[in-house]
Amino acid sequence: MIKMMKAAVLGATGSVGQIFVQLLSGHPWFKISAVAASESSAGRKYSEVAKWRLPTSIPEEVAELDVASIEPEAIKDVDVVFSALPAEIAGKIEEDFAKAGYVVVSNASAHRMDPDVPLLNPEVNCDHVYLIDEQRKRRKWSGAIVTNPNCSTAILTLPLKPIYDEFGINKVVVSTMQALSGAGYPGVASLDIVDNVIPFIRMEEEKLQTETLKILGSPSEPADFKISASCHRVSTLDGHMEAVFVEVKREAAPGSVITAMENFVGESQKLRLPTAPEKPVVVRREEDRPQTRLDRLEGGGMSVVVGRVRKDPALGGVKFIALGHNTIRGAAGCGILNAEHLKVKKYI
Amino acid sequence: MIKMMKAAVLGATGSVGQIFVQLLSGHPWFKISAVAASESSAGRKYSEVAKWRLPTSIPEEVAELDVASIEPEAIKDVDVVFSALPAEIAGKIEEDFAKAGYVVVSNASAHRMDPDVPLLNPEVNCDHVYLIDEQRKRRKWSGAIVTNPNCSTAILTLPLKPIYDEFGINKVVVSTMQALSGAGYPGVASLDIVDNVIPFIRMEEEKLQTETLKILGSPSEPADFKISASCHRVSTLDGHMEAVFVEVKREAAPGSVITAMENFVGESQKLRLPTAPEKPVVVRREEDRPQTRLDRLEGGGMSVVVGRVRKDPALGGVKFIALGHNTIRGAAGCGILNAEHLKVKKYI
Amino acid sequence: MIKMMKAAVLGATGSVGQIFVQLLSGHPWFKISAVAASESSAGRKYSEVAKWRLPTSIPEEVAELDVASIEPEAIKDVDVVFSALPAEIAGKIEEDFAKAGYVVVSNASAHRMDPDVPLLNPEVNCDHVYLIDEQRKRRKWSGAIVTNPNCSTAILTLPLKPIYDEFGINKVVVSTMQALSGAGYPGVASLDIVDNVIPFIRMEEEKLQTETLKILGSPSEPADFKISASCHRVSTLDGHMEAVFVEVKREAAPGSVITAMENFVGESQKLRLPTAPEKPVVVRREEDRPQTRLDRLEGGGMSVVVGRVRKDPALGGVKFIALGHNTIRGAAGCGILNAEHLKVKKYI
Amino acid sequence: MIKMMKAAVLGATGSVGQIFVQLLSGHPWFKISAVAASESSAGRKYSEVAKWRLPTSIPEEVAELDVASIEPEAIKDVDVVFSALPAEIAGKIEEDFAKAGYVVVSNASAHRMDPDVPLLNPEVNCDHVYLIDEQRKRRKWSGAIVTNPNCSTAILTLPLKPIYDEFGINKVVVSTMQALSGAGYPGVASLDIVDNVIPFIRMEEEKLQTETLKILGSPSEPADFKISASCHRVSTLDGHMEAVFVEVKREAAPGSVITAMENFVGESQKLRLPTAPEKPVVVRREEDRPQTRLDRLEGGGMSVVVGRVRKDPALGGVKFIALGHNTIRGAAGCGILNAEHLKVKKYI
Repeated sequence: MIKMMKAAVLGATGSVGQIFVQLLSGHPWFKISAVAASESSAGRKYSEVAKWRLPTSIPEEVAELDVASIEPEAIKDVDVVFSALPAEIAGKIEEDFAKAGYVVVSNASAHRMDPDVPLLNPEVNCDHVYLIDEQRKRRKWSGAIVTNPNCSTAILTLPLKPIYDEFGINKVVVSTMQALSGAGYPGVASLDIVDNVIPFIRMEEEKLQTETLKILGSPSEPADFKISASCHRVSTLDGHMEAVFVEVKREAAPGSVITAMENFVGESQKLRLPTAPEKPVVVRREEDRPQTRLDRLEGGGMSVVVGRVRKDPALGGVKFIALGHNTIRGAAGCGILNAEHLKVKKYI
Repeated sequence: MIKMMKAAVLGATGSVGQIFVQLLSGHPWFKISAVAASESSAGRKYSEVAKWRLPTSIPEEVAELDVASIEPEAIKDVDVVFSALPAEIAGKIEEDFAKAGYVVVSNASAHRMDPDVPLLNPEVNCDHVYLIDEQRKRRKWSGAIVTNPNCSTAILTLPLKPIYDEFGINKVVVSTMQALSGAGYPGVASLDIVDNVIPFIRMEEEKLQTETLKILGSPSEPADFKISASCHRVSTLDGHMEAVFVEVKREAAPGSVITAMENFVGESQKLRLPTAPEKPVVVRREEDRPQTRLDRLEGGGMSVVVGRVRKDPALGGVKFIALGHNTIRGAAGCGILNAEHLKVKKYI
Repeated sequence: MIKMMKAAVLGATGSVGQIFVQLLSGHPWFKISAVAASESSAGRKYSEVAKWRLPTSIPEEVAELDVASIEPEAIKDVDVVFSALPAEIAGKIEEDFAKAGYVVVSNASAHRMDPDVPLLNPEVNCDHVYLIDEQRKRRKWSGAIVTNPNCSTAILTLPLKPIYDEFGINKVVVSTMQALSGAGYPGVASLDIVDNVIPFIRMEEEKLQTETLKILGSPSEPADFKISASCHRVSTLDGHMEAVFVEVKREAAPGSVITAMENFVGESQKLRLPTAPEKPVVVRREEDRPQTRLDRLEGGGMSVVVGRVRKDPALGGVKFIALGHNTIRGAAGCGILNAEHLKVKKYI
Repeated sequence: MIKMMKAAVLGATGSVGQIFVQLLSGHPWFKISAVAASESSAGRKYSEVAKWRLPTSIPEEVAELDVASIEPEAIKDVDVVFSALPAEIAGKIEEDFAKAGYVVVSNASAHRMDPDVPLLNPEVNCDHVYLIDEQRKRRKWSGAIVTNPNCSTAILTLPLKPIYDEFGINKVVVSTMQALSGAGYPGVASLDIVDNVIPFIRMEEEKLQTETLKILGSPSEPADFKISASCHRVSTLDGHMEAVFVEVKREAAPGSVITAMENFVGESQKLRLPTAPEKPVVVRREEDRPQTRLDRLEGGGMSVVVGRVRKDPALGGVKFIALGHNTIRGAAGCGILNAEHLKVKKYI
């Protein structure tokens, strides 16, 4: 029988933190034994300070936990630390935890682009995990920081991976229609989104353009294609949709691209990790799918659903629609899958 | 004093037909003297059969008109015929009217791509109007058919025009976020769009990819760039937003592109036509504009609002957001502006 | 081990029919062995003709069934018939099935107010089931028709029951905010509901005003209080919210009403029927609950969530908010719970 | 020719403040000569600090004004002061202005229920204005404070007035479906309202229940009927809808109630005040009107649109739907109409 590992969640009361709490409830390997949040919440019960926004109830075992303050000294005896901290404060705090010997699995953007920090979308590049060794040597700490990508990057890189491997990529153009939960809570004001689209999400295009190349490249060198993103907020609750246009290196008929996507599996699937979906990319054949509300929970929110794979008349490759769940594959779910890889590889 | 011209509206009870009725109310040159609709409505008062869906009231002078059936014999003594007919039936009926000597200004797609039918987005290509002469000769009729573009094409081609003229275009990639009114009434079911995006609009990508080249080309030859579109329906009432990525022929810094767009005027502006907006393209500088609800009525719904003009790192040109009102610039308003050009040029 | 009973669903491709199919999948007692729909679908596979609109997949065992036409001869060897037929055609067809010896558990309104047809919201009045005997005698058939209430009635009567029993009721005023799925598919046009409320649902107020009295009364006599309803459609997908104002016969402090609601259980709970929720009425204490999206799936969609129980300063009783899932408690789920009662009582 | 009066707007950058600015632009009697806002905005240009959220542009003459701090000393030479201050700070500040001799026309709730402060919905009770004299005597100031009602109260009291006068009222039950703009900006989080209803608006029911009686009563005594409200937030941008149930004193057939409402005019109409709508109450006959989006701008947003007037089977009177624009009739528009009355009556 597997002994459960103890997990802490930093930033546990926020919207991504709540998803970590929800997804870890009932996890076969990890059990939350500590939750940390800002000073104003510290010392009180989790159920009292988390303004719980999910239709499911707060998991009982977490509801009763006392909220700790966010510092290594306040967290005791945990095997892995999940960070759902806001980017502004994550940088320093995560380093403190790594110095104190903790392995931090982070959803924050602060360290994603550090050359010695693995930025993992597991089915795509879990082999980058060995950057941890370099990180430890260079930073002289016994802990580690491992990150998952920005939500829209996590969703984009899954279907790009099989194309990149089989056909090569010269250029990617991507236009997103992103859900409200991506902005956290309270996030987008209702007066800003009813009967409206907001064609701007701060730093999102930059993240999508840089993280994608780090993930699809080797740890030492970004992938060598060009990418341009335009990011937009629409009135959906969960699920980012992306219209993707790809210029390929080698002839790629839509049928071949579909086959490549459907055959694509990563180590996560081969290892049958608890959070890995059966298929990282699910291709729908209907002319009008994927749709945000109907398809975002495919594979428990861990699959990306692709549809409308068709020839691109301008770039000479393919275009398609990709949809993924932004707070699961695009945040907490991806982080948990990362932790599962770390466990299998004995980093935790 | 100008003598008012008499206008008929075919398909006057439908959603585009209602916009024609609304926009023509108070028009300084045209006055609706006949409305035609399907057999089930014919013979009854317009106010009784039009399920009026606009926040403004039915213009009084039209409310009392008897609805005629849609055939040339049923319409008497009008100077111009506006067609808001559904594509499936527009082809034959519009030809009947042209044969009977009427000048038909049509919003339907049936004849848009006919080589001898002008497809006009006036500020871009009102010079194509002379195709009427060819049309009359070839088809041996004394009337004429003139069309305006599909809604998303009308919106795209305005900001592309100054880029095309000043910098040249190799490739255009466009991803749309289109409003519900584009699907007519009842159109999209509410259960299909609340908390959802539908990444498919039948024939829309094809129209956008072909009409754009006809409009920006010469009457005898389409423009020679490549274009790829992905079209999506989002939960907005009116206003199509488009994320546009352009590969240019000659170096085009965002600042220069903005200048070109702001300086752009067409003959419609020079002639000060009643429906022409002061500026066909309005450029906003805020980082998060244009927004659908806030900007769709710019220039009375006849301007396209552009924002976020920035360098495109993949295509080596510029990317930007364009927003226009789909039932005004993208349908009835464009048709009326076409009719104003026809009047000035004595075709009506 | 229980032998599974065979069930047919009439109108199986419609929106309520789909919910029946979904909820019966995995049911411990009933197994769908036949699906029937209109002539245009008959003879084809269910998965081909049902435009499946739910985020879950079509249950495999039903997907492959051939759709039968809606007549007793076309359905063979089933133990119970669920009817999700539209009201207009349900009346005659359900009678045909009852004549042919089938027990029809119907969600249609056609026979609800027939004096010899049980109209059951099980926790409230499952004892009315014995009307079947009268029905069989009077109508001379061996089958039976049993109905569940209109969606808003099913939701209203659960919290009213403990009030009625403990305090007596003189008057009820109820104002609803009903979900889009209540109108079926395609149902409400998106252009009619984005940024809008429609203060009218055909026949809904009449149903709410009459069915409530039949359910809370005895089979031979309606309950003797007065009730007034105003029904409105708002932009939610599932879940009807109702603001309820009650004039009571005997002093009813909010605290006592809450206690009565929380202690309330019906025979469904005592018998631990598979579809019965643990509590028919769940009372929330937060000042801003229940909320439609957060609470509609309480008790698997079979509980009604009540909140804001407070003194009513005009009627001299209490007012509160009630929320229930319109297609589960308010339709298919209630029908299935009815069938469970029928089985326990050996009517099927 | 009328000499323009100079007006100041306190809280001019907030959402109600912006509506005051918009509505006063082009007003025939009042011209904004000063705008005041919180310290962080003071000293800067209005166009720089107001995050303008309306589809229309900032009126040019206001855009260039320097924002003053909110104190009498900072405002010079104005004839009337409009207050769009938040309730928490309005109480003290408005008193300061009144002490300094200014007539303050306030939308804030702070002083509405003070016995010597007129709470005016002009067509209903503009005669209460004489309370100013009492106020001045009692408070020993030369200025004055005059208030308009809470948004939902302003909308409710217009159609109640003719019923109260002609038939008498015993009881009113009202259930609201209120728009997002009523909560200000940013106000309601989008994640809280997409696919949701929030059945709670802080202090709204209390305001509706007390203000209504003050307005319909005499200055010295509230109206003597009972009223119970339940208030709910739905996903509409502007326009509060109210389901109203009335127990009358004297037989009131729906037809007679409609006649009373349609014949109802106030002094505002008789004086033809600039902001007075032609009819304070407009009755629609369609079975499904008023609708929020289609009818909220009736009478420039100053009329209340009533529909579905029908017999109430529980209360023995009538029930109907009332809809009004919450930021125009329910806030700034009502305040401006109040100021027009004050001018005519020489209080300013």
